[in-house]
Amino acid sequence: MRVLVPFDSRDPNTRLSPVLDSAERCEFANVLLDGVVETVRAAGHAPEILATEPIDADCPVRVDERPLSPAINAVLTGSSDPVAVVMSDLALATVDRLTALFEPAADIVLAPGLGGGTNATVIRDTDFRVDYHGGSYRKHRREADRCDLSVETVDSFRLAVDIDEPADLVEVLLHGRGDAADWLRGAGFELDTTGGRCVVRRDQSSNTADR
Amino acid sequence: MRVLVPFDSRDPNTRLSPVLDSAERCEFANVLLDGVVETVRAAGHAPEILATEPIDADCPVRVDERPLSPAINAVLTGSSDPVAVVMSDLALATVDRLTALFEPAADIVLAPGLGGGTNATVIRDTDFRVDYHGGSYRKHRREADRCDLSVETVDSFRLAVDIDEPADLVEVLLHGRGDAADWLRGAGFELDTTGGRCVVRRDQSSNTADR
Repeated sequence: MRVLVPFDSRDPNTRLSPVLDSAERCEFANVLLDGVVETVRAAGHAPEILATEPIDADCPVRVDERPLSPAINAVLTGSSDPVAVVMSDLALATVDRLTALFEPAADIVLAPGLGGGTNATVIRDTDFRVDYHGGSYRKHRREADRCDLSVETVDSFRLAVDIDEPADLVEVLLHGRGDAADWLRGAGFELDTTGGRCVVRRDQSSNTADR
Repeated sequence: MRVLVPFDSRDPNTRLSPVLDSAERCEFANVLLDGVVETVRAAGHAPEILATEPIDADCPVRVDERPLSPAINAVLTGSSDPVAVVMSDLALATVDRLTALFEPAADIVLAPGLGGGTNATVIRDTDFRVDYHGGSYRKHRREADRCDLSVETVDSFRLAVDIDEPADLVEVLLHGRGDAADWLRGAGFELDTTGGRCVVRRDQSSNTADR
């Protein structure tokens, strides 16, 4: 199985700009990527980064400047092996949870993300085409129907949380892998548990440039 | 096992007030409650509503006017049986997921919720005391340590999503049980998939009073 970890190094995590500046967002995105690559490897697979431009990494990097969906569909077109796609910002993903993704024998395995996305996928029939734009989980279910493929959904909180918005940082501090949570703590983030759902607050005297 | 479903009928789901008026929030809260009660029953257990005031229901209702934590701890104090607590707003909970909650043999089983909460719990050692105020998942792990109890965490997106905020309605429309999703659709809610994460929009000509 090929396991792709897509990574867009051009201005990553823009929706975190209220709490992280551009350089910090890049650094954090790289911490998340490294953590996912390492977790895929620890789950017994060889990760391959699908990047929008050349990057330094300790695993193979396939460069494709196109948007995510055509870049992945180009891999599917040429592949005789199953292809898995694991987003690079799954800060809560663990070996156990990735194993739960890779194990089911269904043609298509989907791990839904918050807000209708698809955070991780296994595609065993490469006639399937991905479409990550807007509500991709529904689109992927429809595409599986169109291709008459069996689908299994992995019900996992750890795979459902990707890092899009400041509220997601709460989940990293609470449940995230050490790499990502440590970076946030080092950048001055801590939990504020005074309200309903926890939020993050930041000690602005912490500056990642000092570390 | 006693399975408590706590329900506060006084001004429920206040954080949905930007999108639902007070009467609608009450109606929706009751739809969610009925769905959870039915799902607990379908999972082979006898649900018991823990309500802040007397309500009509087709299962036993224990009335306790106090806040959630002392009301549940009062049940724990008197119980020789294990006690489960399943929040009444788990619109994505299914029989299968509740079974995954009830099955593990650990002293304490926790299903974390978005934002640090605890959405469902099984308490097999009734020395344990709950504390639902602010970041309860961490508190419950610490309490289990204090009591030297074994803990198992259920990693479930379906149990992690409770209905607090308008963004949560997206998950109901996408993945929710029919009862809750149908109610929202009837009230004019639909998915807006044009951005990153989906959001809900509402056709304001739909009025639940007309139905």
